Amino acid sequence: MNIEAYFKITYGLYVVSSINGKKLNGFISNTVFQVTSEPAQIAIVCSKDNYTSSIILASNVFAISALRKETRADIIGTFGFRSGKEFDKFGSYSYKIGKTGTPILLDDVIAWFECEVVQMLDMGTHLLFIGKLIDSDLIDATADPLTYAWYRDVKKGKAPKNAPTYIDPEKLKQQAASATDKYYCTACGHIYDPAIGDPDSGIAAGTKFQDIPDNWVCPVCGAQKSDFAKID
Amino acid sequence: MNIEAYFKITYGLYVVSSINGKKLNGFISNTVFQVTSEPAQIAIVCSKDNYTSSIILASNVFAISALRKETRADIIGTFGFRSGKEFDKFGSYSYKIGKTGTPILLDDVIAWFECEVVQMLDMGTHLLFIGKLIDSDLIDATADPLTYAWYRDVKKGKAPKNAPTYIDPEKLKQQAASATDKYYCTACGHIYDPAIGDPDSGIAAGTKFQDIPDNWVCPVCGAQKSDFAKID
Repeated sequence: MNIEAYFKITYGLYVVSSINGKKLNGFISNTVFQVTSEPAQIAIVCSKDNYTSSIILASNVFAISALRKETRADIIGTFGFRSGKEFDKFGSYSYKIGKTGTPILLDDVIAWFECEVVQMLDMGTHLLFIGKLIDSDLIDATADPLTYAWYRDVKKGKAPKNAPTYIDPEKLKQQAASATDKYYCTACGHIYDPAIGDPDSGIAAGTKFQDIPDNWVCPVCGAQKSDFAKID
Repeated sequence: MNIEAYFKITYGLYVVSSINGKKLNGFISNTVFQVTSEPAQIAIVCSKDNYTSSIILASNVFAISALRKETRADIIGTFGFRSGKEFDKFGSYSYKIGKTGTPILLDDVIAWFECEVVQMLDMGTHLLFIGKLIDSDLIDATADPLTYAWYRDVKKGKAPKNAPTYIDPEKLKQQAASATDKYYCTACGHIYDPAIGDPDSGIAAGTKFQDIPDNWVCPVCGAQKSDFAKID
């Protein structure tokens, strides 16, 4: 068994959203797949611990917004690493209300789908919802979608703990023999690798973690430098 | 509703295989996704018309081989566009028999997974199988996986009719107003676009279909030039 084989499964990254009463919520998902063509049905997977799961269970509708490759880090941070129980994730973003009443994120979105739940499968830690397609639109035909491989390999982003693809860093460490001086964000799991630096924030490749200015923040979720811990 | 929105959902391409008695079979799938991490479970989707579906239903095991970006066209043609009812798809390829007894394709494969079916969902035209991961390996850590976007946009490949993502060309034609002088392969659906040509076979961009040599064959499935029909 080699758990790094997982890295060769290809995924996009999406915001899956729903509504219950006046409460809008959404989360970053990589598990969005068309499962039939006639009728058009799309499968999504949600952790039972995910607040949006309870909202979809109550409303029976959801929307999927396909993110563009250049999606801003704050969208990943807000929808991927914060809980909507405490605040309104849609508060500072543009969205529209679809035919089913569900909110559809539009910022950094290149296509969207709106579905009604027709089947559900309990898989233990996660639920799989099959949605019948109610409406869809293509917003930007030429833009490339954000893929999980790009987010992981280029942006050095990590899966949230609730993602089906989350891998316990301890397991990877057990498997990888090499010691490193990398640091990880205790808020979102983002890894700072000195070999790569954080060029988007002006931190050149080769910069040791201790040499990063103290006002530097996690490029994924905005946590402080002091929220990072060394990977032993 | 805009069906071109589908093109912004990201997929990889895989060979999903199984065995029943002495009969090995497999097909090209784009719907492979990890659905839980603890325990590791992977979902696949198969058309009921697909011969492999009946084999998985009988054996309750399957393997997934993640294809490399540069996968040879004959592998796509053999596993994606021919039926294993009539011949042995594995005949000319290297594979191994996994712990569950299922064949695992190894040619042009960068990682593989072997699963035991633990749940199944009937979605009408297709079945969704949830498999518990039994074994996996990473064969080539540095190679990029073949993605459906690359196959479609760069290789101009099409989904087989049994794929969950198959779009009836008539529907796309109804949606797209522009007339073209493109030709499609009646065997596999591959589209020849003069604007792109077929550089891999020495056909330069700008070459009209009628100017292609008669010994040219479909770059995806190997069908003859005479098997192509004009898209009206």
